Amino acid sequence: MSLHQETAPGVPKVTEILADWVVGLKGADIPPEVRREGLRTFVNWVGCAVGGAGHETVDRALAAVGPFSGPATSTVLGRGERLDALHAALLNGITSHVLDYDDTHLKTIIHPAGPVASALVALSEMRPISGKDLLTALIVGIEVECRIGNAVYPHHYDRGWHITGTVGVFGAAAAVGKVIGLSAQRMRWAFGLAATQSSGLREMFGTMTKSFHPGRAAQNGMFAALLAEAGFDSSERAIEAPRGFASVMSDKQDYGEMVDGLGTRWESALNSYKPFACGIVIHPTIDGCIQLRSELGDARIRQIASVELTTHPLVLELTGKTRPKKGLEGKFSVYHAAAAALLKGDGAPTAFTDELVNDPQIIALRDRTKATASTDCHEASVDIRVTFEDGTSATKRVERAVGSMEVPLTDAQIDRKFTVQSALVVGDDMTAALLATAWNLEALEDAADVARASVPAPRGLSAAAR
Amino acid sequence: MSLHQETAPGVPKVTEILADWVVGLKGADIPPEVRREGLRTFVNWVGCAVGGAGHETVDRALAAVGPFSGPATSTVLGRGERLDALHAALLNGITSHVLDYDDTHLKTIIHPAGPVASALVALSEMRPISGKDLLTALIVGIEVECRIGNAVYPHHYDRGWHITGTVGVFGAAAAVGKVIGLSAQRMRWAFGLAATQSSGLREMFGTMTKSFHPGRAAQNGMFAALLAEAGFDSSERAIEAPRGFASVMSDKQDYGEMVDGLGTRWESALNSYKPFACGIVIHPTIDGCIQLRSELGDARIRQIASVELTTHPLVLELTGKTRPKKGLEGKFSVYHAAAAALLKGDGAPTAFTDELVNDPQIIALRDRTKATASTDCHEASVDIRVTFEDGTSATKRVERAVGSMEVPLTDAQIDRKFTVQSALVVGDDMTAALLATAWNLEALEDAADVARASVPAPRGLSAAAR
Repeated sequence: MSLHQETAPGVPKVTEILADWVVGLKGADIPPEVRREGLRTFVNWVGCAVGGAGHETVDRALAAVGPFSGPATSTVLGRGERLDALHAALLNGITSHVLDYDDTHLKTIIHPAGPVASALVALSEMRPISGKDLLTALIVGIEVECRIGNAVYPHHYDRGWHITGTVGVFGAAAAVGKVIGLSAQRMRWAFGLAATQSSGLREMFGTMTKSFHPGRAAQNGMFAALLAEAGFDSSERAIEAPRGFASVMSDKQDYGEMVDGLGTRWESALNSYKPFACGIVIHPTIDGCIQLRSELGDARIRQIASVELTTHPLVLELTGKTRPKKGLEGKFSVYHAAAAALLKGDGAPTAFTDELVNDPQIIALRDRTKATASTDCHEASVDIRVTFEDGTSATKRVERAVGSMEVPLTDAQIDRKFTVQSALVVGDDMTAALLATAWNLEALEDAADVARASVPAPRGLSAAAR
Repeated sequence: MSLHQETAPGVPKVTEILADWVVGLKGADIPPEVRREGLRTFVNWVGCAVGGAGHETVDRALAAVGPFSGPATSTVLGRGERLDALHAALLNGITSHVLDYDDTHLKTIIHPAGPVASALVALSEMRPISGKDLLTALIVGIEVECRIGNAVYPHHYDRGWHITGTVGVFGAAAAVGKVIGLSAQRMRWAFGLAATQSSGLREMFGTMTKSFHPGRAAQNGMFAALLAEAGFDSSERAIEAPRGFASVMSDKQDYGEMVDGLGTRWESALNSYKPFACGIVIHPTIDGCIQLRSELGDARIRQIASVELTTHPLVLELTGKTRPKKGLEGKFSVYHAAAAALLKGDGAPTAFTDELVNDPQIIALRDRTKATASTDCHEASVDIRVTFEDGTSATKRVERAVGSMEVPLTDAQIDRKFTVQSALVVGDDMTAALLATAWNLEALEDAADVARASVPAPRGLSAAAR
C-alpha cells in the first residue's frame, strides 16, 4: 500500500526485487567459492564475538537488559548468560564489534557479519536450523546489506550515518526472514519495518554506543522479520519510495547497485577480515610499523626520534585523535597505533587497552609522531618515515595492508586471529573445539551447536566436572 | 568523549543544557497552568490508549512480541496481556496512536504524549512512582521532545522523517531518565543513545508501521535511559555535534528553539487534542462538513451533487488518497473524510472503519468530491462548497477547526472523547472509573493505579465475580 508521492519514473522496484530474490534463493544457487567465503566470514565472526565477550561494554549492556529479558533461549557467545533471542542478538552484535576487530566490506566500510550473524545465531537456539541453512541465510543477508550499502555509499556515510547499523538492519531482516520462510509480501513488509528502524550516528565513534549499532541492527532486523511474520504490515517499497530509506538518508541512490547481477555478482564474497583490532584506515600504518620493527629490531626502534606518516585525508578525519586516554579512544588515534606497532609489534586487542594507551613509553613515541594528509595517497596506503636520534632515517611504503582484498588473510591467519582472542576469554581447549565446530558449520544438523560450544565452564567448576 | 569534528563556533551545548535542565527541575518549578495542560494531555492519552487497544495492529504486534517478553510487570492498557516494561511501552505507544486520534503539538505536527506517556506508564508498574512525579516527568519529556522538534521543523519533516518517532525518543529518554534519577552526565548519555536510535519514515503512513513509530520511540527512549543508568556511555553532544542528530537528520538547526526560555516558555502547554480520528490537516474539512450537515439537515445533504474543497497544498500531499480501500487508508483521504462527515456527521474512529470506507453511499459522495490546493489557503483552514442537484449551492469557511489552539477542546469535550472510545473497548463502568482515576493522577500515591484501572475483566467473568 502506498500513499502520496509516486516513485520517480525509471526507479526500479528494488524492495520487491530484493524480497523476491531472498525468498526464491536456494542454498545450491550459491557458488561454492561464495559459500566458502561465507564460511570464513562466519568463523571470523565467532572468534570476534567470543573475543569481545569480556569487555565492560558487554557487562553494562547486560546489566541494563537483564530485568527485561524474556525466555532465556539464546547464548551470549563466550559467556554464561542466556537471554531471549532478540536480546541475545543485540548482545552478540555488541561483543563481535566492541574490539573493532571484525570483518569489513571494503567498498563501503560496512562490517557485514555483526548485524546478520548475531541475529541468526541467536535465532538458531530458538528455532532449530541446519548449519547449511544458517550459512545460506548469512550469505543472503550480507548480500542484501552490502548491495544496499553500495547504492548509497559514500554520500550516506559522509552525511554521518554509521552504515554498519543503518544497512545492517536490512541484512538481518533478510536473513531472519529467509530462515523463518516469509512470503514475498511479508519479506517486503520486513524490509519496510527494517527501513523505518534504520539508525546509528557516526558521532558515537569512540564510545560504547558504536558497538551498540551492529547489535541493535541485528535485533531490529530480526524484530522486523518477526513482526512481518505475524502479519504486521508496512510499506512495500520502503527502500526506493520518495520518502523511503534511500532518498531520506542519502543524497546518492544507485539502484543498479542493489539489484543488477543478483545471483551472479556476489558482494558477500568481497568480505575481508581485520588483522588489527581497530578501524581499517589505520591498518596500512600498523602493517608498515610492524614490518619496520621486524626489519630494524627492538634496539634500533628505541632510538627513534620522530615518526612521519603520510596518509589519505580520511585517515586523519577518522583517526586523528592525538591524545587518547582510554583504550577505546586509542583505536581512533593513528599516532597511538603507530607507536604500539613500532614498540610492541602489536595491533591485536592487546594494543588498545587502557593500560597501553597510558604507557609512558608509548605516549613518548606517540607524541613524536606526526601525520600529514595527502590526497595523492590512496586510502589503503601509507608512507612511513622514522628518523633516529643520530639523524639517519628509514622509510616504509605500504601499498595495501595485510587483510585487504589484495593481501587477504589466509585460513591459517584466520585461525590464529580466532585463537589469540578467543583463548583469552574461554581458554585454549574450548577455543580449539569451538574453532573446529565453526569451520564445520555446513555439516551441523543443528546450527545451535556453535552457540553452545562457546559457553565457558561456570567459575570454580573444572571442565571435567561439567 | 568526542572524536573528529569540532562543533561549529556559536553552537550552544544543547545536549548538556537540556540534560542539566531535566535533572535539576523540580515539580514545583512547573507553573500550575502548565501542570493542568499536562494533566489534560495525560487524560487524553489514556483514553486513546484504551480506545486503540482492540485494533488488529495491536493483536499482530502482541503475537510477534509474546515469545520474547520478559517479566510481565506492565499492563497493555485496555487489555489483559502484561509484558515487560519495555515491550509494554512499545504496545501502549502503538495503541495510543493507531486510531490517529491522539494529541498534536501544532507547530510541529508531533503527537507528543505517545512516546513519553507510554514509557512512563509502563515503567510505573515496575518502579513505583507517585502520580505527581509521573506528571512532572511527562511534562519534562514533552518539553524536550517539542523543543527539539521546533529546532528542526519543517525541514526535518519535509525530508521524510516521521517527527513523532524521531524526536519522541528524546522525550521518552528525558522522562524516564528523570524518573530513575540519572546524573547530568548519564542524562547526556541517554540523549546520545536516543539520538542514535532516532528513526521512523513518513513512507509508512497508511500502514500498521505508522503507529509502530511512537511505540518504538517510547521503548527506545526508555532503553536509552536504562542503558545510561547502567553506565553504558555515549556521545555527550549527540544533538548538536556535526555528525549528531540535528545536522545529520535536518537541513535546519535552530538551537535557540531548544534551549531559550527553558522553564519560562512551555511548549508542553501548547498541546492540542484531536476531536477527529485522523491526521490534523483534515480536521477543518470534517469540522466544516459536520457544521454543514447540522445546518442543512440530512434530507438536503442527500441532494448533494458535488463537493469542492479548497485547501492548503499540504492537505492533498498528506491526505490526497482518492480511492481508499481500508479504514486506515481512509484517514489519508480528505475525500472519504468529507463524505463521512457530510453523510454521517462522524469524524470519530467509527468514521474510519473498513466497512464505512467501502459503504456505497460514502463512495458515491466521495467520488463526487474534488479538492483544489491553494497556497492562499492557510494549512488550518478550508473553504467548502457543496452544489445540490437543483444547481444551488452552499458554502462554509472554517478558519480554525475545533481542537485547534484557537478553539481548544474543553475538559468536558475531552471527557466525551475519552468515554466514547474507551466504552467501546472496556465498557461504560470501567470507563467512568478509569476516567476519574486519570484526572486524579496528581493525588495518586502510586501512579500504577492508572494502568491497573484500565484492565478489563477476563472474558466470561462478570465484574462482580472478580
